Amino acid sequence: MTSTTGTAQHEPPRPEPLKIVVVGSVAAGTSAAAKARRNTETARITVYERDHDISYSGCGLPYFAGGEVKSIDELTPRNAAWFKDRYDVDVRTGHEVTAVDAATRTVTVRDLATETTFEDTYDELILATGVRSVVPPLPGVDLPGVFTVRSPSDARAIRDWVETRQVRRAVVVGAGYIGLEMTEQLAERGIEVTLVEALEHAMPRMDADMSARVDAELRRNDVDLRLAARVAAVEGDDTRVTGVRVGSADDGDPAAAYLVPADLVIVAVGVRPNLELAQRAGVSIGPTGAIAVDRQGRTDVPHVWAVGDVAQSFNLITGEPAWVPLGSTANKMGRIAGDAITGGTLEHRGILGTSIVRVFGLAVAQTGLTEDQARAAGYDVEVLHNIKPDRPEYLGGKPLLIKAVADRASGRLLGAQAIGASGADKRIDVLATAITYGADVADLFHLDLAYSPTYATTKDPVHYTGMALDNAIRGRAPLITPAELERERSAGEKVQVVDVRSAADRAKGFVDGSVHIPLAELRSRSGELDPAALTVTYCNKGVTGNAGQNVLRNLGFEHVHNLSGGNKNYQAWAAAQ
Amino acid sequence: MTSTTGTAQHEPPRPEPLKIVVVGSVAAGTSAAAKARRNTETARITVYERDHDISYSGCGLPYFAGGEVKSIDELTPRNAAWFKDRYDVDVRTGHEVTAVDAATRTVTVRDLATETTFEDTYDELILATGVRSVVPPLPGVDLPGVFTVRSPSDARAIRDWVETRQVRRAVVVGAGYIGLEMTEQLAERGIEVTLVEALEHAMPRMDADMSARVDAELRRNDVDLRLAARVAAVEGDDTRVTGVRVGSADDGDPAAAYLVPADLVIVAVGVRPNLELAQRAGVSIGPTGAIAVDRQGRTDVPHVWAVGDVAQSFNLITGEPAWVPLGSTANKMGRIAGDAITGGTLEHRGILGTSIVRVFGLAVAQTGLTEDQARAAGYDVEVLHNIKPDRPEYLGGKPLLIKAVADRASGRLLGAQAIGASGADKRIDVLATAITYGADVADLFHLDLAYSPTYATTKDPVHYTGMALDNAIRGRAPLITPAELERERSAGEKVQVVDVRSAADRAKGFVDGSVHIPLAELRSRSGELDPAALTVTYCNKGVTGNAGQNVLRNLGFEHVHNLSGGNKNYQAWAAAQ
Repeated sequence: MTSTTGTAQHEPPRPEPLKIVVVGSVAAGTSAAAKARRNTETARITVYERDHDISYSGCGLPYFAGGEVKSIDELTPRNAAWFKDRYDVDVRTGHEVTAVDAATRTVTVRDLATETTFEDTYDELILATGVRSVVPPLPGVDLPGVFTVRSPSDARAIRDWVETRQVRRAVVVGAGYIGLEMTEQLAERGIEVTLVEALEHAMPRMDADMSARVDAELRRNDVDLRLAARVAAVEGDDTRVTGVRVGSADDGDPAAAYLVPADLVIVAVGVRPNLELAQRAGVSIGPTGAIAVDRQGRTDVPHVWAVGDVAQSFNLITGEPAWVPLGSTANKMGRIAGDAITGGTLEHRGILGTSIVRVFGLAVAQTGLTEDQARAAGYDVEVLHNIKPDRPEYLGGKPLLIKAVADRASGRLLGAQAIGASGADKRIDVLATAITYGADVADLFHLDLAYSPTYATTKDPVHYTGMALDNAIRGRAPLITPAELERERSAGEKVQVVDVRSAADRAKGFVDGSVHIPLAELRSRSGELDPAALTVTYCNKGVTGNAGQNVLRNLGFEHVHNLSGGNKNYQAWAAAQ
Repeated sequence: MTSTTGTAQHEPPRPEPLKIVVVGSVAAGTSAAAKARRNTETARITVYERDHDISYSGCGLPYFAGGEVKSIDELTPRNAAWFKDRYDVDVRTGHEVTAVDAATRTVTVRDLATETTFEDTYDELILATGVRSVVPPLPGVDLPGVFTVRSPSDARAIRDWVETRQVRRAVVVGAGYIGLEMTEQLAERGIEVTLVEALEHAMPRMDADMSARVDAELRRNDVDLRLAARVAAVEGDDTRVTGVRVGSADDGDPAAAYLVPADLVIVAVGVRPNLELAQRAGVSIGPTGAIAVDRQGRTDVPHVWAVGDVAQSFNLITGEPAWVPLGSTANKMGRIAGDAITGGTLEHRGILGTSIVRVFGLAVAQTGLTEDQARAAGYDVEVLHNIKPDRPEYLGGKPLLIKAVADRASGRLLGAQAIGASGADKRIDVLATAITYGADVADLFHLDLAYSPTYATTKDPVHYTGMALDNAIRGRAPLITPAELERERSAGEKVQVVDVRSAADRAKGFVDGSVHIPLAELRSRSGELDPAALTVTYCNKGVTGNAGQNVLRNLGFEHVHNLSGGNKNYQAWAAAQ
């Protein structure tokens, strides 16, 4: 359910040719044009693009800026001639649409090369104006050597600067996707990188107990990570930046800030929709700050559509308006609107905010609701941290952490976050597919997934995730997260925490205040515990803890929780506090 | 729907402790025992195992035999003591169950070490007797140096033979999973391998147009592949094998066979359920040749259950009995029966025959029905060959071929096969998940999958697969496979085949009898074609062919098909004829 629906457009069919004008040509605009053409040969389709490059891979830009992609041409494979040949679509680059008159269905277009202005009419207008980078109004933010990463021009300029200025130290501001990608790329080139993030962790879209692992991976790769930090000013002269003054995020005094030397600064603190044209057309903006549209892309102004990053989507699970500007969603929205305008019936079904980023040796991915989002949406959640190799260790498997969140009331899987050296993308895509179909956590165990030890374990991490959550919700084997455990103890509850691992494992570190009864002794020594007290079992990662939990509850213990993700997850959580 | 259901067991609850006897300890047997214990502390659980090793990774054996896995201990991480400590389960290795008296619920057990026999009683008996390798009764098949690959003992013996006998040439008989894995492993050690397969292609479970790609990959890696071939005899002396006599599969004359020298022979022509004990217990066998069971694992003899490779499953799509012995399914069946026996409600939901194997540089995977299986089951199928990089080529993406099969009547996705250097496992698992939920092909486009150019393309191959199939079924953009095209032409139909590629592409090879009209000229030159004739457009891989198809049908052409997978797929198909 999007927040607005467009004016019903039940007008008699107009005589062909239908005239479609698209503003913007990166992902959604060209998708819309191409889909419209696939549906009809007779429409006249024009795309106006202010910039030079069209239909480029915005998400690939950091990899050109950093050098992993050799040529910018690989990111900009298509030009206006290609679209004309293939789709009979006129793409006019260097043309900025400056005004819309919805009453007369007229746009005003400025040809930036000739500096002339003309008018064009439309039957249907598609706004695909995208986003721009947010640049905070800091002293020195316009100095040479300070860049955002939005267009191929930006990426060319960064790479040129890196290669001609012998950059040795860089500051990246913002630890979201672009900031993380640029950090990785610059560090892989041997540049010392300081990454400054205003919030408590890198990758703040994830739950803190997951994003803390991203922090750790950054530090393992010698990134100078400054969390809860704020850039007070950029310093330099009129030829180049020389440093960034960084202070505490909650400290308003620029004088308290310290100087981080830098000969390159990347500003990646977020993006904002390009709304000017929409506002001039009188189009309503949604609660997310992006253009409100219906499920086919209609705005509330007749014959004006909006697609891609500039438009608002909605969450597939909650139905609430959502705005997660990503190329994959932009392409979908463009195709749907192009179809609807030419008589098709495609409708957007909502997003899960599925996303992934590579951070050095780890894939960091998520889909659906985080624990924080699920609680905020009012769900009573069960939370699992599942740590398993992505394939058997004897064939090179590496630990894969899946945090999954389910609704206790219905058993529905609400979301998952995954971090691991390999296989995270696969499990997130499988879980995204399952969530799309409203999967109950009990369904996951039954999935017939492709097994061979070269690709997966006999029971896949997806199976374990479903089994553990189902046991927790319906099998009287509830989980408790480290945060929940400490809340209980802080509240003064009597909690007996039982370490069921071997003595060797315990010697390497344990949960404070836990008693040690190895699983093999638990049956015979259960008399040492109070069967009426809140009991928490744990092991290294959770499986043996669950076995201990089963022993105790089968022996009549009333309230036994298994520590989600075991000692490994507990220690990671504790280190991030 | 399995073909039998067990006798209803509505008897009054028996006094505890419940006594469970399990026969067999590889995957399903130990899963059943462990799940039963998780549900109840009071049951007495005994597992009898004829062999020495328990709970081992059968699917990992080729990788130890070949050397990729260093130690056999990595494949046999658990022993009887571990099960006793963790689950209070008595695993008795070296004990063979030789008889079952279902009336008195008694098994006869032979202790192979002491050569003594005793009886044991059960409340519930679980048969997890697994499979054995089929060994054809050939002359010389018992010579030293001829092996099957079923148990850790087999794998140890092969590796020992390879390392002590300076093996330089090997013959592998059978090109299913185990045969392919052994071929790869031996070749990677530098051994010259001849692979003999009785059918027309390696990996005969797949459709021929896909398995032909497996043939090509084997040959690219210098495997001497003998298809439609039959082993007539194994030659050697009483110290070692020296060669294999190979003839035509349809030629009964051993004298016509030629000698392939070999100092190692692997026989991997299939497996067969170990049914002896089941038959002695009077249990019914299903149409697949495996034990017939209900959805929880009950046979038709009261209190006798069967799980794992010895038991029959059923196809999730068709409901028909199915037998695909795989570790992943065996584990599921064991867990379900262990749950049911101890009061749980888990039920098997059927299999998709999902499987994967690595063949040198390619992953070869499938799920659901093949084209052949779907046609045999009576479906009117739409077939797509989608060839796309698994991620952008600018970040190392490699071609991934997905063949997908859908039901024209309902739009339901029925199955998929995938071959590619990377990312095949992910797409097959996503598609298996979608099929499980009864996905319509139109659903796939809407999946919110994890996109970053490091892991996927903006539109994922899964999206393209769904879009193309939906266009074919509902968008008047039907596909035609190379086989279908040639059937039409052989039947004397007038078919105009239009190559819409560039002149440069055409110069590299084209479909015989095609006319050449590049897409950019198709609009203006459509008058050269007959709008009433059956028209087939094609390009290299299918996308531009679809664009050409859209142009023609929007111009009023009545019957325009796009060649599935384009010229690339056509040439691969033609080469395999």
